[in-house]
Amino acid sequence: MMRLPPDAPPEPDVAFIGVPLDIGTSNRPGARFGPRDVRAQSCLLRPYQMATGAAPFDDLVVADLGDVPINTFSLTASIDAIRDFYADRIPAATIPLSIGGDHTITYPILQALAARHGPVGLVHVDAHADVNDTMFGERVTHGTWLRRAIEEDLVDPARTVQIGLRGSGYSAQDFDWIAGLGALVVPAEECWHVSLAPLMASVRERLGPGPAYLSFDIDGLDPSVAPGTGTPEIAGLTGIQGVEIIRGCRGLDLVGADVVEVAPAYDPSGNTSLLAANLLFEQLCVLPGVAADGPDPGGRGSA
Amino acid sequence: MMRLPPDAPPEPDVAFIGVPLDIGTSNRPGARFGPRDVRAQSCLLRPYQMATGAAPFDDLVVADLGDVPINTFSLTASIDAIRDFYADRIPAATIPLSIGGDHTITYPILQALAARHGPVGLVHVDAHADVNDTMFGERVTHGTWLRRAIEEDLVDPARTVQIGLRGSGYSAQDFDWIAGLGALVVPAEECWHVSLAPLMASVRERLGPGPAYLSFDIDGLDPSVAPGTGTPEIAGLTGIQGVEIIRGCRGLDLVGADVVEVAPAYDPSGNTSLLAANLLFEQLCVLPGVAADGPDPGGRGSA
Amino acid sequence: MMRLPPDAPPEPDVAFIGVPLDIGTSNRPGARFGPRDVRAQSCLLRPYQMATGAAPFDDLVVADLGDVPINTFSLTASIDAIRDFYADRIPAATIPLSIGGDHTITYPILQALAARHGPVGLVHVDAHADVNDTMFGERVTHGTWLRRAIEEDLVDPARTVQIGLRGSGYSAQDFDWIAGLGALVVPAEECWHVSLAPLMASVRERLGPGPAYLSFDIDGLDPSVAPGTGTPEIAGLTGIQGVEIIRGCRGLDLVGADVVEVAPAYDPSGNTSLLAANLLFEQLCVLPGVAADGPDPGGRGSA
Amino acid sequence: MMRLPPDAPPEPDVAFIGVPLDIGTSNRPGARFGPRDVRAQSCLLRPYQMATGAAPFDDLVVADLGDVPINTFSLTASIDAIRDFYADRIPAATIPLSIGGDHTITYPILQALAARHGPVGLVHVDAHADVNDTMFGERVTHGTWLRRAIEEDLVDPARTVQIGLRGSGYSAQDFDWIAGLGALVVPAEECWHVSLAPLMASVRERLGPGPAYLSFDIDGLDPSVAPGTGTPEIAGLTGIQGVEIIRGCRGLDLVGADVVEVAPAYDPSGNTSLLAANLLFEQLCVLPGVAADGPDPGGRGSA
Amino acid sequence: MMRLPPDAPPEPDVAFIGVPLDIGTSNRPGARFGPRDVRAQSCLLRPYQMATGAAPFDDLVVADLGDVPINTFSLTASIDAIRDFYADRIPAATIPLSIGGDHTITYPILQALAARHGPVGLVHVDAHADVNDTMFGERVTHGTWLRRAIEEDLVDPARTVQIGLRGSGYSAQDFDWIAGLGALVVPAEECWHVSLAPLMASVRERLGPGPAYLSFDIDGLDPSVAPGTGTPEIAGLTGIQGVEIIRGCRGLDLVGADVVEVAPAYDPSGNTSLLAANLLFEQLCVLPGVAADGPDPGGRGSA
Amino acid sequence: MMRLPPDAPPEPDVAFIGVPLDIGTSNRPGARFGPRDVRAQSCLLRPYQMATGAAPFDDLVVADLGDVPINTFSLTASIDAIRDFYADRIPAATIPLSIGGDHTITYPILQALAARHGPVGLVHVDAHADVNDTMFGERVTHGTWLRRAIEEDLVDPARTVQIGLRGSGYSAQDFDWIAGLGALVVPAEECWHVSLAPLMASVRERLGPGPAYLSFDIDGLDPSVAPGTGTPEIAGLTGIQGVEIIRGCRGLDLVGADVVEVAPAYDPSGNTSLLAANLLFEQLCVLPGVAADGPDPGGRGSA
Repeated sequence: MMRLPPDAPPEPDVAFIGVPLDIGTSNRPGARFGPRDVRAQSCLLRPYQMATGAAPFDDLVVADLGDVPINTFSLTASIDAIRDFYADRIPAATIPLSIGGDHTITYPILQALAARHGPVGLVHVDAHADVNDTMFGERVTHGTWLRRAIEEDLVDPARTVQIGLRGSGYSAQDFDWIAGLGALVVPAEECWHVSLAPLMASVRERLGPGPAYLSFDIDGLDPSVAPGTGTPEIAGLTGIQGVEIIRGCRGLDLVGADVVEVAPAYDPSGNTSLLAANLLFEQLCVLPGVAADGPDPGGRGSA
Repeated sequence: MMRLPPDAPPEPDVAFIGVPLDIGTSNRPGARFGPRDVRAQSCLLRPYQMATGAAPFDDLVVADLGDVPINTFSLTASIDAIRDFYADRIPAATIPLSIGGDHTITYPILQALAARHGPVGLVHVDAHADVNDTMFGERVTHGTWLRRAIEEDLVDPARTVQIGLRGSGYSAQDFDWIAGLGALVVPAEECWHVSLAPLMASVRERLGPGPAYLSFDIDGLDPSVAPGTGTPEIAGLTGIQGVEIIRGCRGLDLVGADVVEVAPAYDPSGNTSLLAANLLFEQLCVLPGVAADGPDPGGRGSA
Repeated sequence: MMRLPPDAPPEPDVAFIGVPLDIGTSNRPGARFGPRDVRAQSCLLRPYQMATGAAPFDDLVVADLGDVPINTFSLTASIDAIRDFYADRIPAATIPLSIGGDHTITYPILQALAARHGPVGLVHVDAHADVNDTMFGERVTHGTWLRRAIEEDLVDPARTVQIGLRGSGYSAQDFDWIAGLGALVVPAEECWHVSLAPLMASVRERLGPGPAYLSFDIDGLDPSVAPGTGTPEIAGLTGIQGVEIIRGCRGLDLVGADVVEVAPAYDPSGNTSLLAANLLFEQLCVLPGVAADGPDPGGRGSA
Repeated sequence: MMRLPPDAPPEPDVAFIGVPLDIGTSNRPGARFGPRDVRAQSCLLRPYQMATGAAPFDDLVVADLGDVPINTFSLTASIDAIRDFYADRIPAATIPLSIGGDHTITYPILQALAARHGPVGLVHVDAHADVNDTMFGERVTHGTWLRRAIEEDLVDPARTVQIGLRGSGYSAQDFDWIAGLGALVVPAEECWHVSLAPLMASVRERLGPGPAYLSFDIDGLDPSVAPGTGTPEIAGLTGIQGVEIIRGCRGLDLVGADVVEVAPAYDPSGNTSLLAANLLFEQLCVLPGVAADGPDPGGRGSA
Repeated sequence: MMRLPPDAPPEPDVAFIGVPLDIGTSNRPGARFGPRDVRAQSCLLRPYQMATGAAPFDDLVVADLGDVPINTFSLTASIDAIRDFYADRIPAATIPLSIGGDHTITYPILQALAARHGPVGLVHVDAHADVNDTMFGERVTHGTWLRRAIEEDLVDPARTVQIGLRGSGYSAQDFDWIAGLGALVVPAEECWHVSLAPLMASVRERLGPGPAYLSFDIDGLDPSVAPGTGTPEIAGLTGIQGVEIIRGCRGLDLVGADVVEVAPAYDPSGNTSLLAANLLFEQLCVLPGVAADGPDPGGRGSA
Repeated sequence: MMRLPPDAPPEPDVAFIGVPLDIGTSNRPGARFGPRDVRAQSCLLRPYQMATGAAPFDDLVVADLGDVPINTFSLTASIDAIRDFYADRIPAATIPLSIGGDHTITYPILQALAARHGPVGLVHVDAHADVNDTMFGERVTHGTWLRRAIEEDLVDPARTVQIGLRGSGYSAQDFDWIAGLGALVVPAEECWHVSLAPLMASVRERLGPGPAYLSFDIDGLDPSVAPGTGTPEIAGLTGIQGVEIIRGCRGLDLVGADVVEVAPAYDPSGNTSLLAANLLFEQLCVLPGVAADGPDPGGRGSA
């Protein structure tokens, strides 16, 4: 990842981890090849963020810890394996940046992180709310993980913001449960045509100083920007808005982040994986400890 | 289509019909596979529209009547077959939602509908005006159908709005004929960077209470959003604007609608067909008789 | 190109030239097939620009002079061959519109043009500044050509504007050298969400009446719009903004222009080449001597 | 499938069933879309087999019973659902022709068939032996199903022939277990350059008159012929040999057959699915009750 | 084509002509882009045939006469245009090598050639017999052209050989009509596993010294070799056999030849068009007047 | 590569090295991504060769030494870098298995190997002879490397065999120079329809006991088998024949081998890279020191 050496230092500040799971997917599979392809495309990245002057590799020790070994035949066994990997193999002071894999992976990651940090605030970029109670009778899938995470006190709904929700749903009340718990739900329609920098100011205020997690489902973005994903929904966020959201997380106490649902087989150009690699780089650039050269790096839109 | 059962009810409120014609096409063929692929991708759709609360399958009886049998060797014979299918096989009270197929199909569909309803008002989303007099000497093609429809009093030009026209033309006067008849021509340039919700308010006013038809050529949208089409033109509408146009048709007395020019072979991701399936779902959600939960479902842009 | 006849007139006003070079590329090669594919896709273009009424083939004699013969094994030999072709084979009064090929080609083209016109002003659309001193020790590549062109007085940095720069860089100071020489650097962040028509007014003022060159790297646009390129960077300009930039060059004394870095292999839809063909047509429409029908053809955004 | 009407007769002689399972896959997923794409491509098939004169739709009542509902999150639940579907929904006298889906599906199908017919003889075309004991600790997967089927007396190993095995393995003894039970293992190397008609004569002799099942993993064929599959292996059977195998099964008492591991996403031409549709048609043509016009329809190779 | 200059000599010995027709196609369209793509891929061809020493450009004057202008909306008008182009624009002594386009084009080509030469003998490579009486009621299509050509005495059935026929048909008697007229029908099954050099010896004997035409439908070859076509059929000829057939035509009095049904959109590798370009080069190498260096250039198989 | 650990042992018996060069290519570039994609696809390989029982990882210490750093702008500088890497970084007793990259790379590899072993015998699989004197005036390219290697005594022409040559050439004498020096040239035509096991027996005899090198250009195989390459030629070797050639090298004193000209962009299925990974595994299995379980592992063809 990002041309990091294969020998990882023992206690890095930040660790990339691939989680090649896609059997938590109900529609198009293939996210199991997300980590491999995102790493391959990440070789285009250079070390400095031009817009903000961020130099994450100067400010932090960064490592690539490889992939979590997945049981491709059992979702429950894989979830356990992911949780154990994050609990046992990642030092407590290391911030994990995860490369999915379908969105189910965020659940066991949050299990491991909440054990260390308590319930986290959540910035959740997605086309889907992921708060179904069950899917085909299963309780932990890529469409139910967030309900489980809130039920188990891994995530604090009052410190949660969902951005980009849209499309058709199983009931007209799909978004109500989490909003009722105090989360801020920002459907895509509220994002159309505008910069998201102002929104992110209010997000930072809502989440405040506690531990926070940023989960970025690539299908939050429009399929024109990110065709290589399993459950695309039309009329989504632009790539620019995706970057604005991440840059707007600067100042949060991020204890982890991810980019998920990258399914390279549906994008022969390779650009969805390249996008995901860049989004992970943008995440890296806003982690605590990375300096930036100005108070407002978000561009004109944030003026 | 949209997981509808194969057994259609005898008198549905709404009928999906596939029209796999593409020999009315001058450039890249392949729209004959539009209906098949749009149906396949439509399996991703769920029954509720989250932004507006529309529940079309609760409010209306919807059926899929299959494909019109096309003579792939004769454009004129196919046009007759389409007109006869709509006139004979679709009950008078049923609103047809058609899946193209190239844009020629709208002409025989309008022949059948105008026989029932008289001349219709038209909301026409397209990169091209489709008002050439002839192409290669032929009078009915995907580039001339609208001129024929107006000449034959199928469409009322004073109740017609064209949105998204752009690109290069055969003469600098290509758009003048229809404007001279009272139609409102909105070139893509007037749509750049803005919400189309205000435009749609004026569209609803212009069309008023009479019968109306919504014809949505997928090439009205930018090729980045809809690569799988036969005659793409750069700098077009966004997918968001496409949705705004359709949602802005709520309140019109729609007697039919279509999405045309979907040519799946040019989009290996499958996302153009998925987009078309969603646009058809959005059309379904604004038909007369489908309730929505607020006066202004268009999102922030329409505020 | 654009259905021009194979027999070129001896002294055309404008000449299309293909430059199928891609060994100046550091990442994904394939731009050598840009000219061939752009020509093929250009058959969709019709002779009139609908938004502005420009009729370039009425106002100018336009020819296609074919491709520069490239030595695919030697970058330095190819650079010499390009310079010699432009110096020897293109009449002094002919404006060359070049189809790349990688961005290295602009350097020898500018050598030939500056010998005729003196240093030129430059409108440079790109994701990258292209002002590295060397790459892998080489002094003329697709990432260094502009530094060489300024050092050799081919380009006047005070009359230079760069639009669309973004992404990650080799140092946080990558953009400083050229800005220090008086160039205007407009990073992509300043372009997000807005029309570029106002920017282009200031560009026209800055460049003034002297000879000017427009170099359009297709990777200045977002990968969703132009996936078929070698070094894509996320969160770039829209296709609309690309058109606004070119239309905003009307009034400059353009002595040449190009569209470069089109690598068709990474876009199976063919749409990146179609986009490039359209951008070349837009360039043609703003050349000196082509009339337009209004003072403000840029669309609503320029109002 | 093959343009069959959606209304299935209650007791067809033959039934096509789609089994869109792919979570039994260890490498590239995507076979869940096999049934959908094979059905779409099957519209190219016409009713008569030219080489043999077989007219299966004249001789048999054929139906398409749709897809088995799969739980995409649980392999074990899906296996149960498949077995129950075949046991409960398919009449006892109906021969099922199944469209995979990954090879795991053959296990529950055989559970249902063996309950009716007792242990079956097996013609198994595949690149892989599928007799691993476990994979990632799981006992029923696409690489273990045959071991389970033999252990549970669903398949008679002495009446089993495996054709096309090749490639690399987890141990040098991978093929020994089943050979030790009396099965005939025909590695691909023994098939190179020759007609398989003579082999099939010996296969018919080995299986004799008892109930038989034909399981055709599309990866038994060379990746040049069938690129759209999850675990391709080089130097495999030709498409011609695939047809020879199926035609060579004429005379067996086939009680079921399948074509599995078709993953359309890896073949943008659509031809792997078309191939699978044809192989299913060839299977249909050799079922008991379908007449053929000569003793030796296998072509010159079988002379 | 093959880097020929755009200025054609007035009376070439051989002329390449593109015929971009595909509205005679019943299944997948796209062959209209065959000529363009075959020409583009033909730039890989060098002037000497290594296996036979043929040097066609030394022995013959070869020209590319461009494309026949097609009416994309009317099959009958296009057929007339093709016939007229061949009758009027091609000198009587010039041998046309045509690049399709769908197989319908061979009918008007043969009309023009038979007017000059009388009925021709025919070597017809194809998966399909193309002797249906009508399709959708039309008398001239890509599936009926040969019946028409025989009925109109353009082709002498007793001097006709069809090679590669296979697949499913509309009746079990599809191949009988033409065989009853004396044609030799060689189904693909008779070609499996063997060199076709012996067959071609008997073909040369059957056709004898009169005028002959070679019509090569690319779908005669297996889809693995030629995926980019509209009506692929499995278990077809190998590319090697295709070359053997053409080389085996050396000695015939060929008055024309074609390669048809190349539909590039279904082969993103470009290799089907490259194959077609090579087959046209092989055709060129066996025309009367091109020397070869040995009595038997067909390779080992012909020994 | 093949799941080898990133920490290479200091003196491995065998080393995989990637050489991502493609600026020695005259036609389609992209082989620079060969090493990356071949490594990715090689994760499908398991440790045992089923046909021969070879267990290379049991018998040899194998390492992946990563990629040679290439100067993408200078062919001559890159050639020097490759030679120096092989001379300086690879221990004298280590056998390099190289992953191309275009065929130019074999020249500097042979420079390094001949310095250790003296002139080597050569088994050269290719569609092209690669013995041009110059291309565009350059002396070392992918079409001239072998002439240079023979001129510089790196390769012994009397111990050289070329297999698979075919297609069109720049002169009818293209193959004569090397044959005149005593090499055995086996054109593809001599390979059609037959097993190459007998040929390989004579190859082993010709090369005898001295040091030998196996250079496998993937374009030696037919484009249907290996579409992802830069200069495909029709009617080539089958994948089976490719394997027969490599297995037939068992017994030679191989001091190195390569697979070159893999250009993944032209094969969206990924199968060309998978093929190359398998061919490298087959090469590994026949290196000196790897046991096999029988005297004749080549399959029926070699009987």
